[in-house]
Amino acid sequence: MQLTVLKIGGNVLNDEAALAGVLDYFASLTELAVLVHGGGGKASEVIREMGREPRMVGGRRITDAPTLEIVTMVYTGLINKNLVAQLQRRGTNAIGLSGADGNAILAEKRPVGEIDYGFAGDVTEVNGSLLAGLLRLELRPVLCPITHDAKGQLLNTNADTIANEVAKALATQGYQVSLKYCFELPGVLRDINDENSIIKTITPKTYRQYQLEGVIAGGMIPKLDNAFDAIASGVQEVVIGDLSHLRSGQATRLIA
Amino acid sequence: MQLTVLKIGGNVLNDEAALAGVLDYFASLTELAVLVHGGGGKASEVIREMGREPRMVGGRRITDAPTLEIVTMVYTGLINKNLVAQLQRRGTNAIGLSGADGNAILAEKRPVGEIDYGFAGDVTEVNGSLLAGLLRLELRPVLCPITHDAKGQLLNTNADTIANEVAKALATQGYQVSLKYCFELPGVLRDINDENSIIKTITPKTYRQYQLEGVIAGGMIPKLDNAFDAIASGVQEVVIGDLSHLRSGQATRLIA
Repeated sequence: MQLTVLKIGGNVLNDEAALAGVLDYFASLTELAVLVHGGGGKASEVIREMGREPRMVGGRRITDAPTLEIVTMVYTGLINKNLVAQLQRRGTNAIGLSGADGNAILAEKRPVGEIDYGFAGDVTEVNGSLLAGLLRLELRPVLCPITHDAKGQLLNTNADTIANEVAKALATQGYQVSLKYCFELPGVLRDINDENSIIKTITPKTYRQYQLEGVIAGGMIPKLDNAFDAIASGVQEVVIGDLSHLRSGQATRLIA
Repeated sequence: MQLTVLKIGGNVLNDEAALAGVLDYFASLTELAVLVHGGGGKASEVIREMGREPRMVGGRRITDAPTLEIVTMVYTGLINKNLVAQLQRRGTNAIGLSGADGNAILAEKRPVGEIDYGFAGDVTEVNGSLLAGLLRLELRPVLCPITHDAKGQLLNTNADTIANEVAKALATQGYQVSLKYCFELPGVLRDINDENSIIKTITPKTYRQYQLEGVIAGGMIPKLDNAFDAIASGVQEVVIGDLSHLRSGQATRLIA
């Protein structure tokens, strides 16, 4: 069966109109569907309201114990439940989950290296059979970036990684998975300054070529590496673009 | 099939050792089980940390928009996900739900009367077939006191009411439901000053008698009215007591 995993991040969560558009899109999907959301700017806002200073290194949050408490409140509580309520309003039977719920996503605390990320978790296992069970109940799981270690510890986890691992786990369950990353650009661009330079399709072979030519570089590399890793693990396609290009089918499509 | 709905409130949530004991108990149940939790003192603590003053009237919270945001974060986020993680640690496959998740609990905003409770919700419908579906997946739902109105609005809802309505809905689904209220007293007492004066069994007939004699009065009346309402709707028994008396079977048992 066809299934879409849609990942949305801060650029959408921080913009009410953009969010409404994405939720309309998600609600309009006729295939099975799973939503994965990031954290957006709200966590840092609440951290400041509670008199603390957010700490990020290389775009990743340093999650000490009080920060974990706040991101848990914001991601699993405020953001996740409002997304679910807004989807219910659209007639979509969404069910919000952290990685602890139904043991959906197991992770391990990131080892302390040069940087101590605190309670940051790296995904070790996605419970594909739980997600399949919920999908059979005609529910649409809405996953937030909090996981657990099965020893009682919640962990802050990268939402892109969750989307990728969830897509892989569902492919293993036999679904035909399309993993869609909704981000700020219309797609992967040949020329970062030209929004019309969307690369329509990338295969592992052309991906290597684009890297050699320097067309694809920088922050796109880890994103696309992960995407091709998902494809190598059975995900049918990974689509990257903004909402309007995802909708119109003009976003960049990564295939085997 | 036998099923227990266990309700825990602030007296347990505010006390780490008591909470661990209740979670051990819940994890040890061999029948199907659902946990319903209240809010405890944490919401008021966070409200104060965010520079606001909690407002209660007659033991009920006045939930204005910023307060709703905070109770959503605390109940559906912090408390619910930590309970789920602690149950997962005990090998119990818990799944945390607000009323919006899977459309589990529909409510309507309480009409403004003498008092405007703000975003307070009165339960209109529990989705028994959703809960039955989750139980068939061998999950144990953990319900928090946030519901929704299916129009995108989250609502703050009394946890005792949720426990009662969930028990009734599951009885309607054909389960043999035991509804257990874990509270601060060993049971319903003949003499509030004597912890050994637990009334072992109450039926609708003896309940009227105890009320006429003034043995049961005050705050116990609405609690027991609700309990007998659940029994009239097919719940097999309602048990009221503290953890040790619930465990030992010495708590007060209400039956038809």
